[in-house]
Amino acid sequence: MKAMLDHVGIAVTDLDQALHFYRDQLGLEVGITEEVESQRVRVHFLGGRDSSIELLEATADDSPISRFLNRNGPGLHHITLRVENLEDVLAQLKARGVRLIDEHPRSGTEGTRIAFIHPSSTQGVLVELKEQLSKEDH
Amino acid sequence: MKAMLDHVGIAVTDLDQALHFYRDQLGLEVGITEEVESQRVRVHFLGGRDSSIELLEATADDSPISRFLNRNGPGLHHITLRVENLEDVLAQLKARGVRLIDEHPRSGTEGTRIAFIHPSSTQGVLVELKEQLSKEDH
Repeated sequence: MKAMLDHVGIAVTDLDQALHFYRDQLGLEVGITEEVESQRVRVHFLGGRDSSIELLEATADDSPISRFLNRNGPGLHHITLRVENLEDVLAQLKARGVRLIDEHPRSGTEGTRIAFIHPSSTQGVLVELKEQLSKEDH
Repeated sequence: MKAMLDHVGIAVTDLDQALHFYRDQLGLEVGITEEVESQRVRVHFLGGRDSSIELLEATADDSPISRFLNRNGPGLHHITLRVENLEDVLAQLKARGVRLIDEHPRSGTEGTRIAFIHPSSTQGVLVELKEQLSKEDH
């Protein structure tokens, strides 16, 4: 298995401040914005093609991001690593005793399947694994 | 100015668990390990050339990483963005009202100059800016 850092997710309360800093002041390029309805979250990607920053805005009070913000305030929320064959990766991790939040892949942003690993197995980090589906698959 | 994500820093209490997960189970390649004496920290880089994960181990009780771990436990600590001309970047950010922890660059891991930006200007994220010095400069 070979994973690569895909992006780092930042939960924000003030999207304008975030865009002002990361886009206007640091010059990170703005990529896609997408709504993930199942998570009640709107995401804004910034930065390069190979690895980027994802700003996460809650769109409802019961969003997981709202709960995170209520507990912690804005800040680093998760990291995402790209893998191939996510289903196989999850089976391997489970067999090795890694605590998974999602034992099977679910839909992520467009054209991706994702799964989260529990922070107790990762030194406190919420780790998302992501598989980019080929164009034929979706 | 054009910044790029360089790495994400994770403060760890259990380096063995961290290496077991990120290296052995996810297959991230091990890069350099380095001691940053001024910060009482030992860092281990994992992952690709363009963006990577940095595991941070405190080497003394008064290390900033020890203080972070005592307060928060292990987890995401900072993100690092690569820039050119760090001195100029800091001057621009300061002029635009961004709150800087370091108004001038200081030495980072080998061959780099770094500066930190205060989380109050970045939606709660400790942001490190890093300039890679050319071989002639060090």
